[in-house]
Amino acid sequence: MPYSEETASYKFNHTMLRIKDPKVSIPFYTDIIGMDLVEKLEFSDFTLYFLAFDQSGGKATDVEKKANRHKREGILELTHNHGSETLDKTPYHSGNSDPRGFGHIAITVADVEAACARFERLGVPFKKRLTDGAIKNLAFILDPDGYWIEVLPARPLF
Amino acid sequence: MPYSEETASYKFNHTMLRIKDPKVSIPFYTDIIGMDLVEKLEFSDFTLYFLAFDQSGGKATDVEKKANRHKREGILELTHNHGSETLDKTPYHSGNSDPRGFGHIAITVADVEAACARFERLGVPFKKRLTDGAIKNLAFILDPDGYWIEVLPARPLF
Repeated sequence: MPYSEETASYKFNHTMLRIKDPKVSIPFYTDIIGMDLVEKLEFSDFTLYFLAFDQSGGKATDVEKKANRHKREGILELTHNHGSETLDKTPYHSGNSDPRGFGHIAITVADVEAACARFERLGVPFKKRLTDGAIKNLAFILDPDGYWIEVLPARPLF
Repeated sequence: MPYSEETASYKFNHTMLRIKDPKVSIPFYTDIIGMDLVEKLEFSDFTLYFLAFDQSGGKATDVEKKANRHKREGILELTHNHGSETLDKTPYHSGNSDPRGFGHIAITVADVEAACARFERLGVPFKKRLTDGAIKNLAFILDPDGYWIEVLPARPLF
């Protein structure tokens, strides 16, 4: 739309996904995906985890990252409803079989071959490897609850 | 996680949701939510729409916005599987009744009261008005497919 003062402040701050077990999902999104846990909010029945990629090149402190959490885009909110971690398998649905809806989150990376080789080495399951199918420059990995994460280069595919 | 060269380039580029009818959803996300349609990719069976809030204060051209699409965060990808627009109601599931999974996308705004008054005036359905429930400074509106969009101020709630 044309630039409008009415919506000029709006930002696409976050996307929320429910998770079975933070002891599995938080290390996945921090150590493997490379996000920072910028805030954790605990309530009686659930806990919210807010994750984001560092946009400061390693310069921002934890306090600055937390303070910036509402002012930026690209936050992932993970909701843990207490007790789900005891289930044998995730109660959550990826959205990619009936009933469909949400499809995936996506991360862009400078070197998609290197990123996928690293995910492979770290034991991350793939839904689609770079070599699968007709499109050879994007992949889909699966998070611990089975949500799809697209991995693609930071440039046009087509 | 500590700053790592291996993941330093990664960005949370986009979130993908399926939509019934782009003739309804694209005007909703542009005219009402305030995003720009930065790219449209048509395939034989489906069309992808990429939307984002302008981060340039109105200075970026359409060409620049499209060129920046892979390099930034906060993109919303809407997938239209051709033919779904003829259905009486959306075939898609919000993720907030069984089977649950994805919960919502969220936009932060400078003035949540003004934003909600504007959405009300434009006829947007609410899942939770500011005045509903215990938390008076966040709202949830519904997009044309029933996906939940949280509207909250760009500062801590608690």
